[in-house]
Amino acid sequence: MTTLKVTDGRVLRPDHTVERADVLVDRTGGEILAVEPEGEGRASADDTLDAEGGLVIPGLVNAHTHVAMTLLRGYADDEPLDVWLQENIWPVEAELTAEDVRAGTRLGMLEMIRSGTTAFADMYFFMPEVVAAVEESGMRALLGYGSITVGNDDEAAHQEMRDGLDFAEGYDGAADGRISTAFMPHSLTTVGAAYLREYVPEAREAGVPVHFHANETEGEVEPLVDEHGERPLEYADDVGLLDGTDFLAHGVHTDRDEHELLAERGTAVVHCPASNMKLASGIAPVQAMRDRGVTVGLGTDGAASNNDLSLFDEMRDAAMVGKLAADDAGAVNADTVVEMATQGSADALGMASGRIEAGANADLAVLDLDRPHLTPAHGLVSHLAYAASGSDVRHTVCDGRVLMRDREVQTLDEQAVLADAREHATALVDRAES
Amino acid sequence: MTTLKVTDGRVLRPDHTVERADVLVDRTGGEILAVEPEGEGRASADDTLDAEGGLVIPGLVNAHTHVAMTLLRGYADDEPLDVWLQENIWPVEAELTAEDVRAGTRLGMLEMIRSGTTAFADMYFFMPEVVAAVEESGMRALLGYGSITVGNDDEAAHQEMRDGLDFAEGYDGAADGRISTAFMPHSLTTVGAAYLREYVPEAREAGVPVHFHANETEGEVEPLVDEHGERPLEYADDVGLLDGTDFLAHGVHTDRDEHELLAERGTAVVHCPASNMKLASGIAPVQAMRDRGVTVGLGTDGAASNNDLSLFDEMRDAAMVGKLAADDAGAVNADTVVEMATQGSADALGMASGRIEAGANADLAVLDLDRPHLTPAHGLVSHLAYAASGSDVRHTVCDGRVLMRDREVQTLDEQAVLADAREHATALVDRAES
Repeated sequence: MTTLKVTDGRVLRPDHTVERADVLVDRTGGEILAVEPEGEGRASADDTLDAEGGLVIPGLVNAHTHVAMTLLRGYADDEPLDVWLQENIWPVEAELTAEDVRAGTRLGMLEMIRSGTTAFADMYFFMPEVVAAVEESGMRALLGYGSITVGNDDEAAHQEMRDGLDFAEGYDGAADGRISTAFMPHSLTTVGAAYLREYVPEAREAGVPVHFHANETEGEVEPLVDEHGERPLEYADDVGLLDGTDFLAHGVHTDRDEHELLAERGTAVVHCPASNMKLASGIAPVQAMRDRGVTVGLGTDGAASNNDLSLFDEMRDAAMVGKLAADDAGAVNADTVVEMATQGSADALGMASGRIEAGANADLAVLDLDRPHLTPAHGLVSHLAYAASGSDVRHTVCDGRVLMRDREVQTLDEQAVLADAREHATALVDRAES
Repeated sequence: MTTLKVTDGRVLRPDHTVERADVLVDRTGGEILAVEPEGEGRASADDTLDAEGGLVIPGLVNAHTHVAMTLLRGYADDEPLDVWLQENIWPVEAELTAEDVRAGTRLGMLEMIRSGTTAFADMYFFMPEVVAAVEESGMRALLGYGSITVGNDDEAAHQEMRDGLDFAEGYDGAADGRISTAFMPHSLTTVGAAYLREYVPEAREAGVPVHFHANETEGEVEPLVDEHGERPLEYADDVGLLDGTDFLAHGVHTDRDEHELLAERGTAVVHCPASNMKLASGIAPVQAMRDRGVTVGLGTDGAASNNDLSLFDEMRDAAMVGKLAADDAGAVNADTVVEMATQGSADALGMASGRIEAGANADLAVLDLDRPHLTPAHGLVSHLAYAASGSDVRHTVCDGRVLMRDREVQTLDEQAVLADAREHATALVDRAES
């Protein structure tokens, strides 16, 4: 075993107290060994990471995104979800190649590492490319292929579901265990009920969790209710979804009965406030869901509807618009959004991350506090929720490995990744528009 | 005349086209002389500022804030406006000293310069301290003393109004013309009608614009309607407000007739989306106001209800929540929010800033584009609205003077300002809580 010691910082503990301490990490096992008084046993550590003047926080967990969509950042703004997907995004995605996905995923991972995110859940295409990029970057990820049956003939639809299951079963535990997987039927509206009824039980047998989009827009709820005679999540429950290991994205247009069902089943919701605002989809009743006992994580969704992958922006968005939606300035408070981006997201994804404590995954970030916009420091949790930004992150550690040291990403060649992403983005859009 | 040339950048023009060009500035007169082809006449400039790989934008204009409230950043989060003011903020403000205001104002100016803001409108107390801080920082500002009559006896109330007028008349044109002033009766609810009727005409005679808070919360509208028998802005009009040079903050709970009135009178509205969300006040109908021809600027409000002074966050907030409020993803688009933070705010404040063109004030900022979260570059206006952050700013120029060069603030001693602010913030809160 070799060790890493994060020294002289202030450490955010799981109960949101902050204490001056060192954090001792097992680099080999990728685990936090201890949170110790400053200076203790420092000489015996194999490596140290200077956190002086900084705040040590759990690595943030982006629990719902489509990483390679960074290639489409700013490509089509200011359109509602249906127009945006059908007229802007899908025509471009039809031209996507495996190389595009690799280039976009590496770009997104660079952005996430720089902004203190150590783990993410990605639903997209060409997923073996994402596996390779995760291996390279050193991040932790839960990956799945987004299976779609609507618009496909029966054979192609079966193949979509099969591809999703095969990927989930084939890659679980890859990248030295940093990769976990899920079966990801795209959404309640883009995958037919018969296919869900057939393949979800297979996922259960294989012990694979299921991730899907649900209740994102008002427009998708009524057709589901008309077709199935019940609310979307009641329907989801009927077709075998909503297991205790499942997590769904959005949950914007959900009612009390659906919250009750989620709480009973133990299914988590990933809140994506920026995307929901930008596409004018609505705002999820986060406070109501949490009050009812639902696990709520936080995700950026794809960069094309955000337009960045920083969970600091997402925490601020969640708190700000959560108050507006609840008509209560006390709703979705600073502690809540910090918990959502750390423990909530990690729990949703079944990862032992999101906490600085012995036995947890050694996933953490160190923020500089000596900045005008973080001065004075009446409350550090407040700063994380409302004032900090991704650029305040000095170091990022995942699985005990330093991914960024003093703002230099160690695992990816930044300039090469940027140049590659620019080239692929331009060529992709040129192909789609020609 | 001495000159400064901003070289090799891409320049955002007033019509939101972007062109590769140099910007020639008269440092003595503080004016932009020309936007010229790259390289032309560069040798003859007295100084150059390297914008290679960057985007040259107008300096952002924060059209409504209370700068010294940076001392209370994160002091009291997650409370509604009335509780927050009465139980948290006012008790602390009662202990404020002139030195506190100076320390907090310098901290806020440091943060604004770092995030590309070159001008702001400040309504607060101990305003001569703010004048001194503006002189030191090199920023441009419109300043006023926030006069309050409610809760004061008649003599003190008159004194409040007199102090506001005296300040406005005494300091207009200070700091080599970088300071302009306004008469600032605090709000329609905190200043009595009789005082407005008496003193607003004096401001008109002196040619002083008026700035005030209006229609911020739902709770303030009904009492005004009950008392005066008309909507708040109709009442404002009756007591002599809503001149063509006036600008009001918030305008959240306004109706169509009030928008019509604002458009007719030429009174501008300063939208403060972050503060309005954080205090659960509501969201101003920005798209409706703009469609009716109202000039709309953008402001951060005080740092205690935001919790930062970055107009990049504010542009993103305005676009995001503007779509949600309008139930239309096309509302409050990227071009709109960039225009609000530049031309809209400058117009509201009567400043010839907010535009990179010959004859305009030489107020500008240069952003680095070579960043993961700004890659690829399908649209640069999109990046300004949705993806950029204050930390992307490399240089800041105001009135032809370089306030920040290569991320080093030139006019304020950053470490001294931070230390001073921390000391004053701690002592202030200790006094208030003892």
